[in-house]
Amino acid sequence: MKTRCVYFFVLLSLYACKKETQYVPNTKMLVDYVNPFIGTDGPGNTYPGATVPFGMVQLSPDIGIPGWDRIAGYYYQDSIITGFSHTHLTGTGAGDLYDILVMPINSRSNKRIEENNFKPFSSFNHKQEEASPGYYTVDLLDYGIKAELTATARVGIHRYTFPKDKDTEIHVDLGYTINWDKPTAIHIEKVNDSTIQGYRMSTGWARNQKVYFQMQFSKPFSSYGYYEEKAINVNPIKGNTRVVLKYDVEAGDKIVVKTGLSTTSCKAAAHAIKIEAMGFDFDAHRDKARLTWEKELQKIKITSSDKDKKSVFYTMLYQSMLAPTLLSDIDGSYKAANDEYGLYKTGKDSLAKANGFNRYDTFSLWDTFRAAHPLYTITQPERVSDMIKSLLAHYKETDELPVWSLQGSETNMMIGYHAVPVIVDAYFKGFDFDSELAYKACKESAMIQDRQVDIYMEKGYVPVDDQHENWSVSKTLEYAYDDWCIAMFAKDLGKHDDYEYFLKRSENWANLYNEKTTWIQPKDTKGTFVKPFIPKQYTPYFCESNAWQYYWFVPHNIDALIDKTGGKERFEQKLDSMFSYYPGPEDKLPLFSTGMIGQYAHGNEPSHHVAYLYNYLNNPSKTQKLIRQILENQYKNKPNGHCGNEDCGQMSSWYIFSSLGFYPVNPAQGIYHIGIPLFEEAIIQVPNGKTFKVIASNFSKENNYVKQVFLNGKPLQRIYIAHKEIVNGGVLEFVMTNTANNNDFKKLETPNPNKVY
Amino acid sequence: MKTRCVYFFVLLSLYACKKETQYVPNTKMLVDYVNPFIGTDGPGNTYPGATVPFGMVQLSPDIGIPGWDRIAGYYYQDSIITGFSHTHLTGTGAGDLYDILVMPINSRSNKRIEENNFKPFSSFNHKQEEASPGYYTVDLLDYGIKAELTATARVGIHRYTFPKDKDTEIHVDLGYTINWDKPTAIHIEKVNDSTIQGYRMSTGWARNQKVYFQMQFSKPFSSYGYYEEKAINVNPIKGNTRVVLKYDVEAGDKIVVKTGLSTTSCKAAAHAIKIEAMGFDFDAHRDKARLTWEKELQKIKITSSDKDKKSVFYTMLYQSMLAPTLLSDIDGSYKAANDEYGLYKTGKDSLAKANGFNRYDTFSLWDTFRAAHPLYTITQPERVSDMIKSLLAHYKETDELPVWSLQGSETNMMIGYHAVPVIVDAYFKGFDFDSELAYKACKESAMIQDRQVDIYMEKGYVPVDDQHENWSVSKTLEYAYDDWCIAMFAKDLGKHDDYEYFLKRSENWANLYNEKTTWIQPKDTKGTFVKPFIPKQYTPYFCESNAWQYYWFVPHNIDALIDKTGGKERFEQKLDSMFSYYPGPEDKLPLFSTGMIGQYAHGNEPSHHVAYLYNYLNNPSKTQKLIRQILENQYKNKPNGHCGNEDCGQMSSWYIFSSLGFYPVNPAQGIYHIGIPLFEEAIIQVPNGKTFKVIASNFSKENNYVKQVFLNGKPLQRIYIAHKEIVNGGVLEFVMTNTANNNDFKKLETPNPNKVY
Repeated sequence: MKTRCVYFFVLLSLYACKKETQYVPNTKMLVDYVNPFIGTDGPGNTYPGATVPFGMVQLSPDIGIPGWDRIAGYYYQDSIITGFSHTHLTGTGAGDLYDILVMPINSRSNKRIEENNFKPFSSFNHKQEEASPGYYTVDLLDYGIKAELTATARVGIHRYTFPKDKDTEIHVDLGYTINWDKPTAIHIEKVNDSTIQGYRMSTGWARNQKVYFQMQFSKPFSSYGYYEEKAINVNPIKGNTRVVLKYDVEAGDKIVVKTGLSTTSCKAAAHAIKIEAMGFDFDAHRDKARLTWEKELQKIKITSSDKDKKSVFYTMLYQSMLAPTLLSDIDGSYKAANDEYGLYKTGKDSLAKANGFNRYDTFSLWDTFRAAHPLYTITQPERVSDMIKSLLAHYKETDELPVWSLQGSETNMMIGYHAVPVIVDAYFKGFDFDSELAYKACKESAMIQDRQVDIYMEKGYVPVDDQHENWSVSKTLEYAYDDWCIAMFAKDLGKHDDYEYFLKRSENWANLYNEKTTWIQPKDTKGTFVKPFIPKQYTPYFCESNAWQYYWFVPHNIDALIDKTGGKERFEQKLDSMFSYYPGPEDKLPLFSTGMIGQYAHGNEPSHHVAYLYNYLNNPSKTQKLIRQILENQYKNKPNGHCGNEDCGQMSSWYIFSSLGFYPVNPAQGIYHIGIPLFEEAIIQVPNGKTFKVIASNFSKENNYVKQVFLNGKPLQRIYIAHKEIVNGGVLEFVMTNTANNNDFKKLETPNPNKVY
Repeated sequence: MKTRCVYFFVLLSLYACKKETQYVPNTKMLVDYVNPFIGTDGPGNTYPGATVPFGMVQLSPDIGIPGWDRIAGYYYQDSIITGFSHTHLTGTGAGDLYDILVMPINSRSNKRIEENNFKPFSSFNHKQEEASPGYYTVDLLDYGIKAELTATARVGIHRYTFPKDKDTEIHVDLGYTINWDKPTAIHIEKVNDSTIQGYRMSTGWARNQKVYFQMQFSKPFSSYGYYEEKAINVNPIKGNTRVVLKYDVEAGDKIVVKTGLSTTSCKAAAHAIKIEAMGFDFDAHRDKARLTWEKELQKIKITSSDKDKKSVFYTMLYQSMLAPTLLSDIDGSYKAANDEYGLYKTGKDSLAKANGFNRYDTFSLWDTFRAAHPLYTITQPERVSDMIKSLLAHYKETDELPVWSLQGSETNMMIGYHAVPVIVDAYFKGFDFDSELAYKACKESAMIQDRQVDIYMEKGYVPVDDQHENWSVSKTLEYAYDDWCIAMFAKDLGKHDDYEYFLKRSENWANLYNEKTTWIQPKDTKGTFVKPFIPKQYTPYFCESNAWQYYWFVPHNIDALIDKTGGKERFEQKLDSMFSYYPGPEDKLPLFSTGMIGQYAHGNEPSHHVAYLYNYLNNPSKTQKLIRQILENQYKNKPNGHCGNEDCGQMSSWYIFSSLGFYPVNPAQGIYHIGIPLFEEAIIQVPNGKTFKVIASNFSKENNYVKQVFLNGKPLQRIYIAHKEIVNGGVLEFVMTNTANNNDFKKLETPNPNKVY
């Protein structure tokens, strides 16, 4: 009940009390610590633009150059901006979205060279550029135009400040296309002299994307013209793809542009503007976005004298809330996930309506089931149910749970059925949704005749197929983990047969264990291990990884993996090697293997739980040393501050958990493994007005190990804490010391693999 | 005779004595002072790549983004390279050339996103990039490939050093197109497993460009494939436009690629490789290029303790030798200038042969007639005749002298018939060419029924036409100046009637002088001054300029301009205002108005002689102050070191002359106005083994004025020195002082406007 009250208070403060929302206190706010440029250089693939938590709109600058480095539109090393589009992916390797590009220009644009098919762009400079949560600004140097961006959940708001120029133009380019994104149908129409609307259908990584928009301008355009692109890459679109709105402006004139989005209709897009973005007071909307973010960031208050670390922490907390993204209109309507092939595959309507919840999408589940979704169960209690309901809506629309869904479309990127751990985790943590439906969805997704689940069920492992390109080992391990989650879910629902069946399936990882080599290896259909096998090699059997990195993926039964490996001593030797056996110069690392510590690749998700495994060996000091090393070396307060793709909140959520001192090794078991806190104190806001406080006593630069852990004043007898213990409020105290201390930990209980806590 | 000997010595040292040319002394060479990155940031529009003096090949990196900033292919602020093409313009505003793009890639190229129409590129970093005369290297970071470039006159030589990768490819892309450049016909064929050849015909700023090539590889490719671009902007080319050569390489493997160019045939391109670029010893060719440059730079030896100034000086000397560029094959053949419309406009052959001279092109005459060509009469005695013969060849091919010709094509960019002052200057300085033919060419170019020369002859000025877009004032002034040159030429050839006629025409500038306003203003066909008229405004009557900047363009008769203005006192007031009346924030300056000192725009050519005009007022201290200011503030040893377009050697030649202490205000009068030297000593190599030494005695940081000037030990009685005095050898001594000193100069003689010295 209290949660709801807080929620209403937020709503009130955001939408009702305009005067109050414009009040920005003089003291430094937590949003001021956020550096949205972290990850915009290097492999992070983040964007610096304006958005609100889990918003539909990500209004951000686009460089206009294709390829991996600029996959989120922007790259810190560049010097030009080609416009501001309204949708971007955060931290992924998927070159998609970039819908509805807006670019203001004027007659100062004399650096351009007239071509048949002129696409405007401008130089820019980081000195005349700023970003903070919900706000981005840059000077378009070629034109002398200042651009500012902010957003509501469904509306992107631009403000352009112009120099005097009677030949000022605002280009709205729906034909802008880059990477995988290709428009398939475009419509633009003038509603009145300060409003346009239309749609942009496109295909790319996600098929059959639909973006309807309405765009309102604070100043009527004096005239306008449509342009037809003569060549949009190789897929020519017939008809107009760009509208150019003309203005005669005086020096200092400002034009505010509001773009409402919807996946269902222009009307819904207009409705979004009406409800979320009244008037043309840009500053008020910017302040609203800022306060929305501040509210979110206040959920975890840390004490630290290190400004850079504080910036990294709050930026990671910020980046953990950029996905999933809102899919539904204000009235709940959204483009359903069943027409991703442009056909109604399931025979159901292509439009759906979320009743009583917000429908989300952009589920990068292979990444986010590990730490991001568990984090939301602590920091986003009001959104977890909606996210689960969204996963279930996807199931209802397509008869399968999503794997990697975007814009109401299953992209089928990556592997596993990792909606399952997300749902099961939320189920055990008591979030509200239809558990029978959820169970049905989980079970069916684990029984499909697709993604080699069928042959996995038949053989107990995914065999290498003819093309050897099937990530067979990774699939086997991940399916087995997800099966464990279903088993626990079935058990709790009293479905005993299913429990037995899926618990048995959850042991399938062992079918690929080669006793002779002590590695988990690919097998062919006949059950023979594939040769040659070199553990450090990146082969098609391991998803973006090698055999070292996947060896540890039995998060539901590390005890059994230890046994298989030959006991704790042998397991610890192997784990030590994981962190000390560095790739040589002759080893060609794939794009994803970054943030290396030996074979450990913090830049990619399969490694994320591995540093915590020393806890199972009663040797947590090694975990502590590694976690500190990763926290301090792989996350920096600079544009090149991410060691790998941010991946829709997973890299940042790893940081949040680990810097707080605990981490969900098995993300559906209701517990978090004890690590080492990075800050003197952290106060987490939990439901019912309570707090969960993490204290590091004897905190100092030298004291880099944990001596003992107390929960609510009593020595912790376990190497983990339960989720319930956090959300009920309390104090977790880490007594810090300067030497590795395993003696006190030796007696600590490790989790029971056959139980959710 | 001696000149020829020197020339032969150079040839010998370059082509015969391989061992000797590889000898690079340990002491710092002058090439080491050159920073080819000057002008690659900001408005300079230079390229950093590899070329030899006045060479046909400019092998340089291409960013792949269109527009003004990257018009020479490269821009220092960028972070990607899309390949290395073989032809680039230096310091212009013309987006053309970029022929035959080469890009090596390999399977590490995982930052790319597979698109239908993949164009490879790589990130790069200035830390792993270097440039020096004749050499450029950069690491292509996405692929781990080191690229190195060097050149001979007609051959671009690449060396790529690879990491181990069996999927290495060299892309040769003839479809690469950007800015105005558009391919019209492309052919690629395999000659053998280490040779390809073909051609790339294109149109753009220059029409009907023909580039034939042969490309030889030090390592045979294992296989190859042709690619047809599905969309080359809006002008689809049918057939293959790209060949991809495949290699399996080991770590450290190097492949050398030699690309011969010709405007006439693949055979000629192959011949260029055979004669100029024997073998595959990249280092030897790089050293040859380096020594070729060193030889050129040794022509002026300066003494300075300021390393940055020394770098600027030698970079400017280097940049003064990047155009004109060689057009003819080794046997003298070249694509004639008469088929620039793809038709044989003149009914003559499209192929021509230069007998006994090298045919040059890339004549940016509106820029270079001012200081670059006069500089060549001192530093390039062996090339001046060839350049004049090239201008005359263009005349023979098209019946007109060139205005701005490129790749054997008249682009008709800019105004004037400024081949005339270049020819007349060379004539009076005694260079060898057919003077009767030259005179005919000059006269006919001044009598054409085109470029409003006809109406200029009829009315005595160029009237504003209906569109008011005709640069009427600029044309009138520039035609009048060129007419003065013809008059002097006629007089010397004994053509008295012509002398009278053209001398009269040379006074036409006065027809636009408005006595009421004391400005030179546009007139309509009826002879009425056009209203409104605001001198500081940039209007279509003034070429890239305003009335302030063009007021001073009567270089042949400054005395008359002073009289018109109302005498020396009034003239000096106006000149003072020129340098003190700064544009306000409300004034929209065009792209070309940069390097502003008041209304003076050092970034564009019409201003270039203006700071020297105080010499006519016996007030040279003001000239001295301004020249020092421009030399020190508008040229910097950094990428953004040019204040405006370098313009094919004009900005750099201004620097060379001015820093030596003299400048050709009227570039065809055989004299140089006295300025102020920037260095303690400069030794100019002049013919017959002699030197012309410029000494600044009492040189110090504080002594920023000239007290007195001595020529060969005697006080100079004139405010100018004659060209003959330089090339005969001698010593010009400037006695420096810390205060403005005009008294000693008051008596000095100014030049006689009716005479060439």
